[in-house]
Amino acid sequence: MKTKLGNFFEDFRLGQVMQHATPRTVSTADAALYTALTGTRFAVNSSDPFAANLGLPRAPLDDFLAFHLVFGKTVPDISLNAVANLGYAAGIFGAPLYPGDTVTARSEIIGLKENSSRQTGTVYVRSRGANQHGETVLDYVRWVMVRKRDPASPAPPTVIPELPAAVAIGDLVIPQGLDAGHYDWTQAGEAWRWGDYAVGERVDHADGITIEEAEHAIATRLYQNTARVHFNQHTEKAGRFGRRLIYGGHVISLARALSFNGLANAFRIAALNGGRHVAPCFAGDTIYAWSEILAKEPVPNRADLGALRIRTIATKDRGCGDFPEKSVEGYDPAVVLDLDYTALIAR
Amino acid sequence: MKTKLGNFFEDFRLGQVMQHATPRTVSTADAALYTALTGTRFAVNSSDPFAANLGLPRAPLDDFLAFHLVFGKTVPDISLNAVANLGYAAGIFGAPLYPGDTVTARSEIIGLKENSSRQTGTVYVRSRGANQHGETVLDYVRWVMVRKRDPASPAPPTVIPELPAAVAIGDLVIPQGLDAGHYDWTQAGEAWRWGDYAVGERVDHADGITIEEAEHAIATRLYQNTARVHFNQHTEKAGRFGRRLIYGGHVISLARALSFNGLANAFRIAALNGGRHVAPCFAGDTIYAWSEILAKEPVPNRADLGALRIRTIATKDRGCGDFPEKSVEGYDPAVVLDLDYTALIAR
Amino acid sequence: MKTKLGNFFEDFRLGQVMQHATPRTVSTADAALYTALTGTRFAVNSSDPFAANLGLPRAPLDDFLAFHLVFGKTVPDISLNAVANLGYAAGIFGAPLYPGDTVTARSEIIGLKENSSRQTGTVYVRSRGANQHGETVLDYVRWVMVRKRDPASPAPPTVIPELPAAVAIGDLVIPQGLDAGHYDWTQAGEAWRWGDYAVGERVDHADGITIEEAEHAIATRLYQNTARVHFNQHTEKAGRFGRRLIYGGHVISLARALSFNGLANAFRIAALNGGRHVAPCFAGDTIYAWSEILAKEPVPNRADLGALRIRTIATKDRGCGDFPEKSVEGYDPAVVLDLDYTALIAR
Repeated sequence: MKTKLGNFFEDFRLGQVMQHATPRTVSTADAALYTALTGTRFAVNSSDPFAANLGLPRAPLDDFLAFHLVFGKTVPDISLNAVANLGYAAGIFGAPLYPGDTVTARSEIIGLKENSSRQTGTVYVRSRGANQHGETVLDYVRWVMVRKRDPASPAPPTVIPELPAAVAIGDLVIPQGLDAGHYDWTQAGEAWRWGDYAVGERVDHADGITIEEAEHAIATRLYQNTARVHFNQHTEKAGRFGRRLIYGGHVISLARALSFNGLANAFRIAALNGGRHVAPCFAGDTIYAWSEILAKEPVPNRADLGALRIRTIATKDRGCGDFPEKSVEGYDPAVVLDLDYTALIAR
Repeated sequence: MKTKLGNFFEDFRLGQVMQHATPRTVSTADAALYTALTGTRFAVNSSDPFAANLGLPRAPLDDFLAFHLVFGKTVPDISLNAVANLGYAAGIFGAPLYPGDTVTARSEIIGLKENSSRQTGTVYVRSRGANQHGETVLDYVRWVMVRKRDPASPAPPTVIPELPAAVAIGDLVIPQGLDAGHYDWTQAGEAWRWGDYAVGERVDHADGITIEEAEHAIATRLYQNTARVHFNQHTEKAGRFGRRLIYGGHVISLARALSFNGLANAFRIAALNGGRHVAPCFAGDTIYAWSEILAKEPVPNRADLGALRIRTIATKDRGCGDFPEKSVEGYDPAVVLDLDYTALIAR
Repeated sequence: MKTKLGNFFEDFRLGQVMQHATPRTVSTADAALYTALTGTRFAVNSSDPFAANLGLPRAPLDDFLAFHLVFGKTVPDISLNAVANLGYAAGIFGAPLYPGDTVTARSEIIGLKENSSRQTGTVYVRSRGANQHGETVLDYVRWVMVRKRDPASPAPPTVIPELPAAVAIGDLVIPQGLDAGHYDWTQAGEAWRWGDYAVGERVDHADGITIEEAEHAIATRLYQNTARVHFNQHTEKAGRFGRRLIYGGHVISLARALSFNGLANAFRIAALNGGRHVAPCFAGDTIYAWSEILAKEPVPNRADLGALRIRTIATKDRGCGDFPEKSVEGYDPAVVLDLDYTALIAR
């Protein structure tokens, strides 16, 4: 049969390497569509002169847009039969994607664990996106719960990879040419520098954004992500939720875009330390977000840049003025995303 | 009166030639929007290096995107007062459209036939899209049922053009520079070559995609297609269907995008042999598709390329695992599109 | 607190100057998205060769797209806490925006008047958008009703700027290089020249376009306009209208796009003389428009160009065949926009 129906849990082998399909040349159109779909306002991704003033050749695509493009390519091979995307770790953003670049992706299976139900298993996959020069754009690990085709098929040996709680400061990649020495705070929209943030500080990003069915579907197709749950109302109306599930990455992008209000100068995502899609999102939901500074470190040998480790919590249909989060009873029921990333910020 | 209300059946004359308005310079944005609206994943239209490896200057726009741009230009002059788009024939795709090219369109009336009701007539029109070098991008015939302004106006002599059942292999245009000798099957996403397909073989494309009102309207406006039935809920709610009708070309694009799953290497549409919009589609419908190989021929004097004549059937709200089609009783009630095209595929 | 919650009426000072955030490099993607969201068909904005034939370096972005980009930048500083956008005056379009240009915006407060309720006040603001060469792209005045943070805070001295009823012909800016001597009427789509329009003439633009929630939100985010009323259904459902309000500029764009039918050759907006958003618009509304020629003047020292002062009225859910407008009892209840602008048109 020529049709691909995606891999099931028992199809994966430890150490298996997959080169994913459809190399993608990106353009200013990806940037414009990303702006139009998420409302992002970071100056470095919006303006060529602003980027040039930072030593970059031109405005790079948003870092999470690069993430989605790489993620999307992995879906047909990794997660077409996934039940849930469980977590992320060890994500390092390398060369920024610039209009005209071509991104490709490959993955390696680095862990497998059948679940006790024997209906599903967890697949740990390390994926690497590269540009046309072979430079790494993004290297990250995710783990995903995948259905078994046949519950009776034998379980593979359990291998769970050791993953860092956070990417070490020394492992961050500073984009080539980047020099924040002449950073333009006025054009960036806020005056807060690295030194103005304190560990433990919390920022309510205040605004909310409602997601329409067409919006998340257009975004997710832009990334050539083919996961069925996002697109097929005919089957999903009979599924778990009775409707299409929004790609969790779209919620990440909205939370990041909202975080401009209070974190406008956290202009470069350098690492994705972790992330959990706490609850599903659907069309009609309104996303809010708040952030906490988990850690701050100077970037070694750089006077112009500092790093902030940031936890961003997104909620739906509930403002974040009181910073809803996890307690002993579990997450506040409005929380949909708990994201842990490291951003570069001018000093 | 300065407002154009479109031509009615009695306004057309055999042999009449119309140069259509609004030349359009295309860009990477058209490609990105087309990807975002249809979910297409063909590598040649997604990646400049993949296209360069095929001898093309860069990634061409999707062939059906070129079709829609040419079609859209004809609407204000040809089909603003159309009841239905009845059929296509003799469509030959010439020079691919590349970002930066400018497409224009002209049409000639090649047939007229008043219907027995005297309320409408069928207009046969040959349309040609050209690029800024005067090269033909697309040459095709469609026939369309158009309202009469005045049912009492006299009928023109009936002229029905002779049209081929399919474009002959010798009439296909091979894009300048195209050489599939180094085709990259891994990046394309499937390993199936021309030789792997058999006449009569059927492929279920498996996935389904639900159409939102905003999506088809955005796509159809991108093509500057002005047909009222797609855009005006205020009048359509009192019309035949009580709601906006989806541009049939959008369904063609969705079916073609879905066909990537099983026909990923059918990378170039060379001919549109025929097509019928069997039933109307509306927002909320989920489109599925399957294809049958009607014929296969080597491309003369080419070792790198073969041609497949493909019939693609699209359905709504019904999977295609059992290949629903036409029987003596007529079409399966779920069928919305019956398309016949010829694609080039690497050998 | 690092979060910006926007300025309230008492935060503004006469003469205050603000440089707005997020410089934006525009591209062909902005043009394509604008076409896809509004359905505009003006040849000069669609085709590089058509623009080159007019002496322009390439197709400029639609003038109202430039307007929205400049307007959007002002929102976080000026109108985040606005109740209503009350009017426009003295808008002069300068250098067209071309793909690759970077637009920035700054504003000056030129008038303040507390309202008798003491709950709100009117802020008069002159905003200037500039390109990367420092050339003015757009200079205009708007006045907007803004909430007070504290009704008890003291009123500023009332200053109401003197504003012209219309921009004088001698103040219009003719884009550099523009020469309409070889204007291509066929490609433009209509044959009507400047001399074909008479003062007092009315044109019904005939078509209607229904707005979807996703469409206006995507457009408004493209302009990085952050006004909450357009995006947050969670709060708006408890607000004045129970739902999201459509950015009035989107309605301006739709009315202008519809006006192609009858005013296809009014190819350059030179001035925004005035404008009033008579009634709010919501998703599901169908917009129609008609126009009246208020005045016509030759452009001094130019044989190729004339100016038309045009009033365009937009309605919702009501055709404009009988030219609904204002009477002694007030506006027809279907009217949503009353716009007064000056366009250049070939002679």
